Amino acid sequence: MQINRLTQQFQFIIEIDRLKQILRQTLLTDGSRRENSAEHSWHLAMMAIALAEYTPEGVDLFHAIKMLLVHDLVEIDAGDTFCYDVQGNHSKAEKETQAASRLFGLLPANQGSELRLLWEEFEARETPTAKFAAALDRIQPLLHNQQTKGGTWRIHGIRRDQVMKRVAPVKTGAPELWPFVLQLIEDCVAAGYLQESPPTLYSDSDRGNTVSL
Amino acid sequence: MQINRLTQQFQFIIEIDRLKQILRQTLLTDGSRRENSAEHSWHLAMMAIALAEYTPEGVDLFHAIKMLLVHDLVEIDAGDTFCYDVQGNHSKAEKETQAASRLFGLLPANQGSELRLLWEEFEARETPTAKFAAALDRIQPLLHNQQTKGGTWRIHGIRRDQVMKRVAPVKTGAPELWPFVLQLIEDCVAAGYLQESPPTLYSDSDRGNTVSL
Repeated sequence: MQINRLTQQFQFIIEIDRLKQILRQTLLTDGSRRENSAEHSWHLAMMAIALAEYTPEGVDLFHAIKMLLVHDLVEIDAGDTFCYDVQGNHSKAEKETQAASRLFGLLPANQGSELRLLWEEFEARETPTAKFAAALDRIQPLLHNQQTKGGTWRIHGIRRDQVMKRVAPVKTGAPELWPFVLQLIEDCVAAGYLQESPPTLYSDSDRGNTVSL
Repeated sequence: MQINRLTQQFQFIIEIDRLKQILRQTLLTDGSRRENSAEHSWHLAMMAIALAEYTPEGVDLFHAIKMLLVHDLVEIDAGDTFCYDVQGNHSKAEKETQAASRLFGLLPANQGSELRLLWEEFEARETPTAKFAAALDRIQPLLHNQQTKGGTWRIHGIRRDQVMKRVAPVKTGAPELWPFVLQLIEDCVAAGYLQESPPTLYSDSDRGNTVSL
């Protein structure tokens, strides 16, 4: 039984090597290539260590780090979905749930359930720990896009309003980091790395015409 | 002051992105390319989670994971030294100490010292936690070399006795995993992935001649 457990654990360890081949849209800070999800997960865990003093009350740092280490494992089967890809994000949940069953199912049952719960907690973004972990996951690509003078924002024509929506979870997940995020976005727009939001069209019913702000 | 701390912390977070460009000798399990030290560090942290139940008494798992996440950071400046490179390992210590000063020095002093201590503890391999972390660092390349049918062992003509010497810290750092390591090496030799050790030459002084075993 002991040997069987260990065999399952090593099979899991070997299988997750494949996360190193899952490419994200984000570029490395020197722009030389796209980042993969394994090294991204390492970077987030390091961010949790470096930014530990800004965890809001109720955050368990060790739990957050474990969560960040496993949060992208499902991409081994489901692939990485670009956060601004509306179409791709529709089918994402189902593919990732199947992936979770297969991957965490490689481990002994009690251990597999534990890691799956970690992943589900991250996805639900309801606990302070999950919210903090999610905040780091939103901040990291900002840094990379700033370092690469717009990186994937420029490639995909992403605008300020889209980025603001994407990083909104930082406000509640890591409030002490929120002013930094706002300033970073401001700087990126000013530097021309990020496009300004398009003018908002709204119907001015009083005057019966459409105003472009 | 607060802003200054945060600026330093983000400079550190951006700087360590470079670990993703440090290539190790180890190949990914599918042999497609060499592994980098950031994704390797992630893999080791995941191993610590998956193999948590085999930690010897006195091991602090959270501490071990933090140690594994930071243990290769110095390679950003010092590069990765192949473990079987005798020449390269002579100058390794000095280069890595300088690297530690620069990299951990990017952080606010109290935090930089804390991470540096983690790295020094890992290097010294004296505490149960450091010994356990080192054991995982020795096991992971074994798995990769087995999966790639000899991988870097074949490329560099590495033999069983060299591997045995390299993995010896597993015996004390993670004794419950030691039988697995021995079996894995045995299997790799049997499969032809790893060369048998050369015959040992010793002087048989009683009979005044040299015997090859």
